[in-house]
Amino acid sequence: VSLYENYADEIASLIERGTLRAGDQLPSVRQARATRSVSASTVFQAYYLLEARGLVRAEPRSGYYVLPQAAPAPRRSNPKPGSRRVAVSELVFEVLGSVKARHIAPLGSAFPSPTLFPLEALRRAAAAGMRRLDAWSTVDDLPPGHEPLRRQIARRYLKLGMAVTPEQIVLSNGALDALNLCLQATTQPGDAVVVESPCFYAALQALERLNLKAIEVPTHSASGLDLEHLARVLERRKPQAVWLMTSFQNPLGSLMPEDKKRALVQLLARHQVPLIEDDVYAELYHGSQAPLPAKAFDTEGLVLHCASFSKSLAPGYRVGWALPGRYAERVARLKLMTSLSGSIPAQAALADYLQDGAFDRHLAQMRRALKRQQEQLLTAVERHFPAGTRMTRPLGGYFVWVELPAPIDALALHQAALGHDISLAPGPMFSARAEFGNCLRLNSGHPWTPQLAQAMATLGQLAAAQQHRGTALAGETQG
Amino acid sequence: VSLYENYADEIASLIERGTLRAGDQLPSVRQARATRSVSASTVFQAYYLLEARGLVRAEPRSGYYVLPQAAPAPRRSNPKPGSRRVAVSELVFEVLGSVKARHIAPLGSAFPSPTLFPLEALRRAAAAGMRRLDAWSTVDDLPPGHEPLRRQIARRYLKLGMAVTPEQIVLSNGALDALNLCLQATTQPGDAVVVESPCFYAALQALERLNLKAIEVPTHSASGLDLEHLARVLERRKPQAVWLMTSFQNPLGSLMPEDKKRALVQLLARHQVPLIEDDVYAELYHGSQAPLPAKAFDTEGLVLHCASFSKSLAPGYRVGWALPGRYAERVARLKLMTSLSGSIPAQAALADYLQDGAFDRHLAQMRRALKRQQEQLLTAVERHFPAGTRMTRPLGGYFVWVELPAPIDALALHQAALGHDISLAPGPMFSARAEFGNCLRLNSGHPWTPQLAQAMATLGQLAAAQQHRGTALAGETQG
Repeated sequence: VSLYENYADEIASLIERGTLRAGDQLPSVRQARATRSVSASTVFQAYYLLEARGLVRAEPRSGYYVLPQAAPAPRRSNPKPGSRRVAVSELVFEVLGSVKARHIAPLGSAFPSPTLFPLEALRRAAAAGMRRLDAWSTVDDLPPGHEPLRRQIARRYLKLGMAVTPEQIVLSNGALDALNLCLQATTQPGDAVVVESPCFYAALQALERLNLKAIEVPTHSASGLDLEHLARVLERRKPQAVWLMTSFQNPLGSLMPEDKKRALVQLLARHQVPLIEDDVYAELYHGSQAPLPAKAFDTEGLVLHCASFSKSLAPGYRVGWALPGRYAERVARLKLMTSLSGSIPAQAALADYLQDGAFDRHLAQMRRALKRQQEQLLTAVERHFPAGTRMTRPLGGYFVWVELPAPIDALALHQAALGHDISLAPGPMFSARAEFGNCLRLNSGHPWTPQLAQAMATLGQLAAAQQHRGTALAGETQG
Repeated sequence: VSLYENYADEIASLIERGTLRAGDQLPSVRQARATRSVSASTVFQAYYLLEARGLVRAEPRSGYYVLPQAAPAPRRSNPKPGSRRVAVSELVFEVLGSVKARHIAPLGSAFPSPTLFPLEALRRAAAAGMRRLDAWSTVDDLPPGHEPLRRQIARRYLKLGMAVTPEQIVLSNGALDALNLCLQATTQPGDAVVVESPCFYAALQALERLNLKAIEVPTHSASGLDLEHLARVLERRKPQAVWLMTSFQNPLGSLMPEDKKRALVQLLARHQVPLIEDDVYAELYHGSQAPLPAKAFDTEGLVLHCASFSKSLAPGYRVGWALPGRYAERVARLKLMTSLSGSIPAQAALADYLQDGAFDRHLAQMRRALKRQQEQLLTAVERHFPAGTRMTRPLGGYFVWVELPAPIDALALHQAALGHDISLAPGPMFSARAEFGNCLRLNSGHPWTPQLAQAMATLGQLAAAQQHRGTALAGETQG
């Protein structure tokens, strides 16, 4: 074992034992040489090795910092079996409402910071796009929608290797509209629909609104829905549809590997059950390569793939789309029936913006920001939250799912946090039966500020206080 | 009886007997003096009198023209009793699809000509409005929506004498979205909803989509829904909601007088049944005064009033709103759940446009155009359609409802007309049970052109040919 390996192991063990914690800076080369009598090259080699092991991160012109890693991932979910009428809306609206005030730390927000988007470039594109519209566009652009934008969207799928034509795309008022239309296109009131556990609350609300029943299937925090469990549900329960977020799921951040996506599509094809694929975070991968959606493996038109520009480019424009496969005509008709069409000026603005490479340059910048912010948030969880806390470390998107040690109650923590002007998204929002009472979803989509740092420290204190009260109470009960 | 009255009576009788027909020019003063030896002042007085009686119209620097008036109004509808599951969509989509090609004469269109709107001024307003948006507007403007626009809308109601505040308004993706949300806010699958007969097809489609049953109530072509009949339905059938277009109804063009609107609201209040009021044509009155909506008489928050800018200002922007009364919070939540929010740039554009008097100037011009175009269309119906044809003469909007003499079949006429590149909206589109087989809705929202004149002549010929074939067939059957 060489000198530098020895030195690296020593630091690794300090990290493991918690002496060095997430966010701490490693000694500078000068300090290390002074205190340890090692050469600069030994220090550098040791730090490179620690970086390669994923224990530390180099910050240009600053030094090396310990990465968050001690907390294990949350356990696979284990929802109670059976389908269920849904009623999560009250809690969801309460939490959403709490995020609207600007002085509240937006850890419970569902959106990335609006400052991450190229608003000025979009305004210019809107002006140019609207000049190009002629008067008859209001008729021409009825569903499936503005053709130049559908062409630009198809081009992006082609770059992923997917053969998508503009004719297969139906534009919508954001992905949520597309998802609701796809759900209606595939179900009747009273039907059962498979969802993840935990599950994006808007999916639960859509089921509630359309009088559908939720079958919650266990979901791994890293790799998504449990396919063996799904196979059994398909055999026994005959659901009419499956609604999943296959890449960077909300709230877990899980990413289903490509092989698993292929297997999922094949499994559903055998049962002829449609998959509604909510894919709004795919562009926000932190690594170097875009994940393929399940739609890429769909040969039968059974995948209704939905996405939008709301999370990646233009929040508030409400421009999304569906690739509904064999349900395309039905979805376009439902769009006509429910709101006639999307907003044409917004569609024209995005068609103009997408013509050159600006979107990819913006995305590269946004991905770097999201990756950095996630690290800052994870570091803060590790630093401030009670021992025994588990958390996800998603490879994309801007959510972190935190599992708190018993007896901490997320709803009580949510109430206490609001008293300190801090929002969070408590776990029961993400379940048809109020499970995940000890979990939170935290938003890492906002640039790190002293206010956020303070909010995370306060959250950690509030959680610890709850834990102590809970333990004391349990002690009294036993005594 | 004076000379000029004699002369006026003589001309009136020529009009009555069909010698002078709609669109014909009256003799010039010079011709009248030459052929009748009357003074210029006698001719003028006679023509003023005829104009006052509504028989002719003065065209500046051109002369006097006979107005269409021989055709009586269509009879009050008499739908079969009972509620009914709805299935009109196939026909509706076929007809809507036929209107998309620009070479088709758009007599079946649901929209006014896009050339009637101030597109350039809207583009400038969009640029100004978007400059005013800050990044956080995407969060601030979640439902109920962009506050500056809600303020402008409230101002317009104040001008009508209605006390509306911005807080009572929920913005939507056009009126159709608002109507669908209001329908969902007031009903559960399986409920029965009162609609007009004939009825706007999108209302029937909304009922179909939400598994609701339609109770069709007889409707007068001039004054709207039969209130006595409604009173009996409320007693016996306990509908959960009533959905009406109280001003310039689609397709009849009927305008419920203010007293009747007040009585309607009082009747529904006694039964505590909500009224969904679709009021998208109110701004398009042809006379000098805006009709008040039923909402103006609502003291209990039971009227869910819906409107938009799509027909009056900005088609394709998809900006509408609801005043849902006591259902406001529920409607805002449904908006959040189904599509998160409307398009914020479009809302900001209209907020900017509405700041000064431009909208009222545009409306004044548009109302004049619609009134003129209606007259041209009515004249063409009278000139070219078979004897026995009845038609409405709405006081606003851009639809004319035509009742054809037996045995003409509107669906067959629709098919024949498509073969001549002419679209029309056949009566069965407007009924849950395919009634109105001998009726058509014609669109007078497009500037009169030689193509439209030719299309109307062709339609008249096709109708006459059908009538002859039908009569011949009946003769054979009897013989």
